[in-house]
Amino acid sequence: MIKSDMLRYSKSVSSLRTSEIRDLMSLATRPDIISFAGGMPGNELFPVEEIDEIYNNLPLDIKQTGFQYGPTPGYPPLLESLKEYLKKKGMPVETNKLMITTGSLQAINILAKVFIDPEDLVVTENPCFIGGISAFKSYQAHLQGIDLDDDGINIQSLKSFLNQSKPKPPKFIYLTPNFHNPAGTLYTEQRKRELVPVLQEHDLMLVEDDAYGELYFDEEARKRVVPLKTLYENELEICYTSSFSKIIGPGFRLGWMLVPPEIYQKAELCKQSMDACSPNFTQVLANEFLRSGKMELYIKKLRIIYKRRKDTMVSAIRKYFPEEMKWAEPRGGFYMWVQLPPKVDIMSVLQASIDKGAVFVIGKTFDPEGKDNSHFRLSYSNTPEDEIEKGIHILGDCLKEALKPSR
Amino acid sequence: MIKSDMLRYSKSVSSLRTSEIRDLMSLATRPDIISFAGGMPGNELFPVEEIDEIYNNLPLDIKQTGFQYGPTPGYPPLLESLKEYLKKKGMPVETNKLMITTGSLQAINILAKVFIDPEDLVVTENPCFIGGISAFKSYQAHLQGIDLDDDGINIQSLKSFLNQSKPKPPKFIYLTPNFHNPAGTLYTEQRKRELVPVLQEHDLMLVEDDAYGELYFDEEARKRVVPLKTLYENELEICYTSSFSKIIGPGFRLGWMLVPPEIYQKAELCKQSMDACSPNFTQVLANEFLRSGKMELYIKKLRIIYKRRKDTMVSAIRKYFPEEMKWAEPRGGFYMWVQLPPKVDIMSVLQASIDKGAVFVIGKTFDPEGKDNSHFRLSYSNTPEDEIEKGIHILGDCLKEALKPSR
Repeated sequence: MIKSDMLRYSKSVSSLRTSEIRDLMSLATRPDIISFAGGMPGNELFPVEEIDEIYNNLPLDIKQTGFQYGPTPGYPPLLESLKEYLKKKGMPVETNKLMITTGSLQAINILAKVFIDPEDLVVTENPCFIGGISAFKSYQAHLQGIDLDDDGINIQSLKSFLNQSKPKPPKFIYLTPNFHNPAGTLYTEQRKRELVPVLQEHDLMLVEDDAYGELYFDEEARKRVVPLKTLYENELEICYTSSFSKIIGPGFRLGWMLVPPEIYQKAELCKQSMDACSPNFTQVLANEFLRSGKMELYIKKLRIIYKRRKDTMVSAIRKYFPEEMKWAEPRGGFYMWVQLPPKVDIMSVLQASIDKGAVFVIGKTFDPEGKDNSHFRLSYSNTPEDEIEKGIHILGDCLKEALKPSR
Repeated sequence: MIKSDMLRYSKSVSSLRTSEIRDLMSLATRPDIISFAGGMPGNELFPVEEIDEIYNNLPLDIKQTGFQYGPTPGYPPLLESLKEYLKKKGMPVETNKLMITTGSLQAINILAKVFIDPEDLVVTENPCFIGGISAFKSYQAHLQGIDLDDDGINIQSLKSFLNQSKPKPPKFIYLTPNFHNPAGTLYTEQRKRELVPVLQEHDLMLVEDDAYGELYFDEEARKRVVPLKTLYENELEICYTSSFSKIIGPGFRLGWMLVPPEIYQKAELCKQSMDACSPNFTQVLANEFLRSGKMELYIKKLRIIYKRRKDTMVSAIRKYFPEEMKWAEPRGGFYMWVQLPPKVDIMSVLQASIDKGAVFVIGKTFDPEGKDNSHFRLSYSNTPEDEIEKGIHILGDCLKEALKPSR
């Protein structure tokens, strides 16, 4: 009964070869080790008390609704509350359609399914969110990563790639302009402005991933997190995705997309065939959290805590890392992206660091081609401040050791 | 900027043309109408009190875990509890791997993704669960429906189809042996036994959907719901799917698959790219519900209630339906499948019935080819007994009217 893989499994699943996400998760949650690996909120930060109060005050009929199937695009009161919330931020909710998804990863996956045929080209940043990479690859897309610099995607590299790919243009470009995962980058207004004519010239749709935009650390950053979906709705075709994962909790599995009506129709059909609807139980809770104004208060608290963790990490890095390391101070989000000097073997640094009790994620995890190990990612979101100091000390020692001239 | 659909959207989404599931949901939930349309539990039946008690007794750290990402294959304590539960039923949990999915529809969708390339053939029953149809079609499968009779899939039709499709054999066969949706059929032991050599001869993997097996109405049915996965694990290759939707609530979005390890590995990669993990929040609650034994007590209660609703529907049908209608009394599950005499226009019956205040689902919804309207589906799961009586009376009158010789 044994058939060869090629005959037996679909081509799309055969293109998914590794299980890096699983490895990452298991490293990130080992209790004996200080973890800078997980792209997740700290367990101690979740709004448990607020949700307790909401849950225990729900009328019976609303609670029952939480146990039932809901409409595929989302629990209608949550769609309404979220629409109000996004409208206040200036997002184009009237001319677009909103859909609740099972995490924003599902939103990205659905958009991939709507647009990608095997061998189609998708442009991403390099580095890129690993979930995006795996979603696009699962539809057998070819990925082209374009370098990020401190201001955003490199416009020259993007232009020259798009010019050369004119015979078979990409289906879309996938960007994370706010507090990029893993690079931490916050796009400048100018970079966003420069992007517009390039995408227009090449008739290129933008998938804008904004999972971290709420988590800015200062006033200047607050002004800069305005999505392209808000700024350039009339100039570009944009599918916007975001998530409750970082502002309530990933365990709710709730994200959303805000997209043009025609794309929404296709997306709804896809979602129907994937999981019928997202969890109504957590949608009911998220709606009350959002509608009551408790979410906004909670996010304010989060900004302060994550900023403190970032500050702690930055000072520890200044104290313990060798000078040869290059990095930029994040203005929001969860991540720092650290560049190694050439010829340092990141794998032996990682092994030494794990042995001494601290873990992080190597760069190639976020390279669409799975090769570039010149950087590594540090997440400060899930690590209390005293552990940040300790862990960065460990990692700094390992980096110094690796930089010693070999005997 | 307008491109034609063919160029713009992927081939797989272009093959999803209708939105029948949405139409069905909106009909099923209209408050002014007696609905036999929804394949859902009644809101008043959900175990709200039990879940309240569980929620309020959760230790803080477990609650926090519910807010967090979990491992892709599921919340480990739930996997353990479910494994124990399935083991007690005799299922082969040691030689297979268990994965929690976002409803059993996601399990079916994942298996479709693991196996189906465009133009591949999949064999289903005819009629077939609409979620299965849409999941398979979303990967551009060709579906071949094989007739169901009162004992299960028709073996002669299956054999002759498989013989003729030898040049390009199907990737798998998808069956729902326990209380089929929509047909209500419970396979006989003999029919299951007859199936084995046919699948063996054609080296055909079985995807066994068992969303309703817990909901048997009598002792004989209890004996007959044993899955093929339990009976013929050594004879056949079987991917088994099931769900908490009908035994806790669909709003939890929790289902599972029990599959051979090699297939599990592929399925895990797919799930990682789809939604990373199923809702941890509801997994934590489901685990306590299952582990405490409360779920078993609750299911016992459900069996009694659904049997009563079925009995009410059967007597009302005997009382109000014209004699020409053919149907079989269900021994479990949610559905009755009623055959019309030839030449009755089901669409005009449906319209008349909706006008008078009762709704059901027409047969072609469940036909893989979307054509056959010789039957309709009545669901009794979501309708209180007095409304069942009233609604069947309305529908019976409409059917009698339609059967009158035309003037």
